[in-house]
Amino acid sequence: MKVSIVGITGYVGAELARLLGRRPDVELLEVVGRSAAGQPIGKVFPNLAPLKLTVAGELERMTEADVIFLALPHHASAETAAEILEKSPTTKVIDMSADFRLKDRATYEKWYGPHPAAYLLLEAVYGLPELYRDQINPQTRLIANPGCYPTCSTLGLAPALSSKLGKPFIEPDVIVDALSGTSGAGRGLKQNLHFSEMTESTAAYGLEGHRHLPEIAQTLTDVYGSPVDVIFTPHLVPLSRGMLATSYARLTDDFVATYKTQAEATQAVRQYYRDFYANDPFVVIVDESPYTKQVAGSNYIYICPTINLSSRRLVVVSALDNLTKGAGGEGVQNMNLLMGLPETTGLDMLGLYP
Amino acid sequence: MKVSIVGITGYVGAELARLLGRRPDVELLEVVGRSAAGQPIGKVFPNLAPLKLTVAGELERMTEADVIFLALPHHASAETAAEILEKSPTTKVIDMSADFRLKDRATYEKWYGPHPAAYLLLEAVYGLPELYRDQINPQTRLIANPGCYPTCSTLGLAPALSSKLGKPFIEPDVIVDALSGTSGAGRGLKQNLHFSEMTESTAAYGLEGHRHLPEIAQTLTDVYGSPVDVIFTPHLVPLSRGMLATSYARLTDDFVATYKTQAEATQAVRQYYRDFYANDPFVVIVDESPYTKQVAGSNYIYICPTINLSSRRLVVVSALDNLTKGAGGEGVQNMNLLMGLPETTGLDMLGLYP
Amino acid sequence: MKVSIVGITGYVGAELARLLGRRPDVELLEVVGRSAAGQPIGKVFPNLAPLKLTVAGELERMTEADVIFLALPHHASAETAAEILEKSPTTKVIDMSADFRLKDRATYEKWYGPHPAAYLLLEAVYGLPELYRDQINPQTRLIANPGCYPTCSTLGLAPALSSKLGKPFIEPDVIVDALSGTSGAGRGLKQNLHFSEMTESTAAYGLEGHRHLPEIAQTLTDVYGSPVDVIFTPHLVPLSRGMLATSYARLTDDFVATYKTQAEATQAVRQYYRDFYANDPFVVIVDESPYTKQVAGSNYIYICPTINLSSRRLVVVSALDNLTKGAGGEGVQNMNLLMGLPETTGLDMLGLYP
Amino acid sequence: MKVSIVGITGYVGAELARLLGRRPDVELLEVVGRSAAGQPIGKVFPNLAPLKLTVAGELERMTEADVIFLALPHHASAETAAEILEKSPTTKVIDMSADFRLKDRATYEKWYGPHPAAYLLLEAVYGLPELYRDQINPQTRLIANPGCYPTCSTLGLAPALSSKLGKPFIEPDVIVDALSGTSGAGRGLKQNLHFSEMTESTAAYGLEGHRHLPEIAQTLTDVYGSPVDVIFTPHLVPLSRGMLATSYARLTDDFVATYKTQAEATQAVRQYYRDFYANDPFVVIVDESPYTKQVAGSNYIYICPTINLSSRRLVVVSALDNLTKGAGGEGVQNMNLLMGLPETTGLDMLGLYP
Repeated sequence: MKVSIVGITGYVGAELARLLGRRPDVELLEVVGRSAAGQPIGKVFPNLAPLKLTVAGELERMTEADVIFLALPHHASAETAAEILEKSPTTKVIDMSADFRLKDRATYEKWYGPHPAAYLLLEAVYGLPELYRDQINPQTRLIANPGCYPTCSTLGLAPALSSKLGKPFIEPDVIVDALSGTSGAGRGLKQNLHFSEMTESTAAYGLEGHRHLPEIAQTLTDVYGSPVDVIFTPHLVPLSRGMLATSYARLTDDFVATYKTQAEATQAVRQYYRDFYANDPFVVIVDESPYTKQVAGSNYIYICPTINLSSRRLVVVSALDNLTKGAGGEGVQNMNLLMGLPETTGLDMLGLYP
Repeated sequence: MKVSIVGITGYVGAELARLLGRRPDVELLEVVGRSAAGQPIGKVFPNLAPLKLTVAGELERMTEADVIFLALPHHASAETAAEILEKSPTTKVIDMSADFRLKDRATYEKWYGPHPAAYLLLEAVYGLPELYRDQINPQTRLIANPGCYPTCSTLGLAPALSSKLGKPFIEPDVIVDALSGTSGAGRGLKQNLHFSEMTESTAAYGLEGHRHLPEIAQTLTDVYGSPVDVIFTPHLVPLSRGMLATSYARLTDDFVATYKTQAEATQAVRQYYRDFYANDPFVVIVDESPYTKQVAGSNYIYICPTINLSSRRLVVVSALDNLTKGAGGEGVQNMNLLMGLPETTGLDMLGLYP
Repeated sequence: MKVSIVGITGYVGAELARLLGRRPDVELLEVVGRSAAGQPIGKVFPNLAPLKLTVAGELERMTEADVIFLALPHHASAETAAEILEKSPTTKVIDMSADFRLKDRATYEKWYGPHPAAYLLLEAVYGLPELYRDQINPQTRLIANPGCYPTCSTLGLAPALSSKLGKPFIEPDVIVDALSGTSGAGRGLKQNLHFSEMTESTAAYGLEGHRHLPEIAQTLTDVYGSPVDVIFTPHLVPLSRGMLATSYARLTDDFVATYKTQAEATQAVRQYYRDFYANDPFVVIVDESPYTKQVAGSNYIYICPTINLSSRRLVVVSALDNLTKGAGGEGVQNMNLLMGLPETTGLDMLGLYP
Repeated sequence: MKVSIVGITGYVGAELARLLGRRPDVELLEVVGRSAAGQPIGKVFPNLAPLKLTVAGELERMTEADVIFLALPHHASAETAAEILEKSPTTKVIDMSADFRLKDRATYEKWYGPHPAAYLLLEAVYGLPELYRDQINPQTRLIANPGCYPTCSTLGLAPALSSKLGKPFIEPDVIVDALSGTSGAGRGLKQNLHFSEMTESTAAYGLEGHRHLPEIAQTLTDVYGSPVDVIFTPHLVPLSRGMLATSYARLTDDFVATYKTQAEATQAVRQYYRDFYANDPFVVIVDESPYTKQVAGSNYIYICPTINLSSRRLVVVSALDNLTKGAGGEGVQNMNLLMGLPETTGLDMLGLYP
């Protein structure tokens, strides 16, 4: 299968190349990055030097590609997606930007400004396979690959809000407090990401609102069936790859009445989560808070739900690699589904530990 | 003034020596550490080598000391405190452990087991100068030095719950989500603190309850005048010194009704915090989330309160160095007050940045 | 093919499991670790949880294994190797310890004490494929997998000392100054590897001699054909995976006389290195000092030789992941050769960057 | 005393403000930084917020200053120094740049281009107090503050080359292999200093020559009395503050003949170093390789000389904080001497550990 990556000079593009560059069933047709046009890929990302590819300045062989990944800034991504879908009917587009994630145009425009191709919002499928796998198939043409924070937090909370295996057992009012490695902030240079200043330091950001908030709310609302209120605070922690979300929600009265001890309730909930994700190869339910390094470079998400009966709360800690399961790996997972391949093809590498 | 430190082989003891070892008005009478008895202090902590002190195995000159710091495990600390207070009437004790922090014996015993010297709970003063300065004076004999998480979070929330300058503007139900550098977990070796495993990693812990929770609740309840409900989740982040607490609380209706815009409300609250801490030399109210490194090695706490009107929440981010303002520095601040000295004596060093 | 790993509780054993656990052509027959006998592997190393293996306490199915990796302490490794080779004639042993690396028994015993199975020294093949590939083949039964420092430094210096493509152009007197991530120091807990103390810190060690010194000297001497003098100083740097060796040697007069400019000489030497390693899929010659992260988790070694004509020196910087190309990856590379497989099977993953 | 700092927006300027801002005997007259003119200092460096100073755009009160520190890029520094020395005869200048470090104009111009004020080279005193204290006194007007690598390495090698207490015991041909924290590379943003890329990574740089080389050679030559040959390779390691130099030199035949055992020789050399630096309050001779964190934020340099008799080498490891003893702290040490104050005034803080 022929695959192109547009936006190879950023971390998400490079992660896609890392994951796809060695697959025997994939030919990397074009890797596009305007600012590095004509350079060997190893000049841009030395880890990719063994691929011996040259960066293209433009997408020139669009129609030959079976799949094109767009790892571009928002707006640019939507514009390119629209062009591909128009000009090359047999090509599938997996958009790594935020452009097609929010179904409600007004919400999108509140956070990102005017949408360059709003007519595609309906067609785009939100590519979170664990919740929307049935929509991700060979008929799908446009995937909106989820954000890292939304992937991490919604997979942690979805079982508790879903009616798939039983009834919801938390109230629709959640707090998501999340920690991200710095690679999530991209490759662009900033003073707060200068090594000397970021090492041995941590901070919150987005205190007055973060773009991933409406995306989290949209998915949880969809799972729950009516509005879920979300409060979300992201933090930067001094590591490159890794994301940890700690999510809080109040338990329903029914749930609280069911269990006598905290241990019993916690055990039941963990089993419930295991059942919920029984067919999801990348979700692992664990019995202690995961450490992000356990999943570094892998496509796994480790989730640890715990019941605190005295405060009547569910606390869920979930961990993933923001560039793999939180971006490129999830993109490849979507690609596999789009192409009718086993979902884990090329993705079953284990976390790089220690 | 003559000062002894018991427990010099741990990080808190070493921090006290760092802060006191160069003061012209302090003689380090004895630095005690059973496991290192007879060794030069630089053998235990090479940064302290220039002090040229020898570690004592026991507290031998108890009655000569004006102040004795106890940086011991709980229980051992209470036992030693009781002995000193009995045998040496003119010596003051600053206990860095948790033994005298909780006023309610039953609460203490729930978390720590039987109290070895419960009769001292009444006498002990909770040494958080910003809230209890009037009780920390030359008449005080026993100080319970606060925990790092409690110092960081209660100073962030106290103004909003206090009636000192107006009326409380948040509901008495708060969430504290906090990040700690690894030095807070002490010097004892553990697999999860092994460098190879902790670097580039982060996790939550204490999911089923942490000992600092009742301490936070006790102080906030005291400030508010009636019970404040607290949910608290600590996390380990890959840095040595530094603590960041992100605290959430729902705003009162009155507050929400008062302000038209979020910016206006935030500005008002920051000014309110500045007024509240106008006489506190170590509290700095800032306009963006602090980074922990900004206060590394200093006794400052940087606090950033923000209003989110749409979600009707106050979000406060506060940052300190867990070994300085969160432990040894606060201990010295208490010592200054006990001895009638200016509060900032020997403590006005600035954060070591970058 | 059936493969067992003995010593699964250490980092090298875990790295082997990471690399082998997902290979369709490999069945992990037994993963052995006495201290974790009976536990699921994910309890020992959570990154390996998806393998769903149980740790065995002893090697029970020795004779079924095609290959057994020994990731044991020295002495224990030699004893186990001897036992396997005796009892199971069709099993190959790849020893990750130092027990069979030094050909000269006296040298071995100077550094490690009495050899438990010295009679195997002659049979053992030093498993550095780039230099000894012809000896690593289906007839070989016992591989001594090289140390990380030796792999990193000898591959950097070998071309300059070899007569394979021309004549040696450095004097046989080299200095190797090397930096290692902490994972090279193993999983055992030590005060200097405690996160709080190792983060933001660096030091030299082994100032009075390090066990990898004779191994480096042995290989370089073998390549050169007569004794090469080696000075070697290792350092610990605050990162988990990664090794960088900076090696210095004086250029021969002939070499110096050949080139007019430093740029010309450097370019020629880099081309010479490229030719030297033309058939080595894991060696990449680069034009700037590599950063260790460029090869993290990969089996590549990046080498940058530079000529400094004014000081008449060759300076070679080489970088690898000490657990992959410096241990487990090289072990798998050897396994591939032993089993007659393409050398890169299961090993062509790219560096995890950033 | 009135002190101004020009170049407050860089790390060296900020370090000077950290060290001087709290001294009761120092008034920070002006802190100058064109790019931040008019801003509160806490906006530029939040750790300095408690100083409540405003950044000036130009040096306006030049003639009022007793001492002016120049933390400017080279060339700009020399120009400003010349202007101050001309216009304000009572002001002393401590230049933190490289402009007056190299006594030989041709050498300077080879590395830095045309010198803007070469006539001052003769007057400038090289401000390494441990070696040139007698020239740093109230009569001195212009100090060239040494580079961080030169301070770290020359103090490690000087005793072995000096005739002060005996005769030199190494040959005049040394190798300096040094590791620097990233703060030494300054505050300017660069891709290789982006946190995501620098964390968990290390590399060499300056392989074809580094500007600190001639400075090291100049001092060692001066100490030895005839030319000393120097090879120098700097490395970046993933920490902010800290520098470690490992220096190698061949022992003289006389020295080798004097000692029977390595232990005896090492002990003798360490005592010799202690005697050599007996009157230097910031030099500590230690018995194991120092870790850089032991001196973080302090003005100490820890030095560990070791003899390797079999390879006939002296290996010296020396560690300091590149921004303190390697820059700002040394600058303040020079200021103290220029003003006739005790050398340790305001500088005796201990390393911030852990």
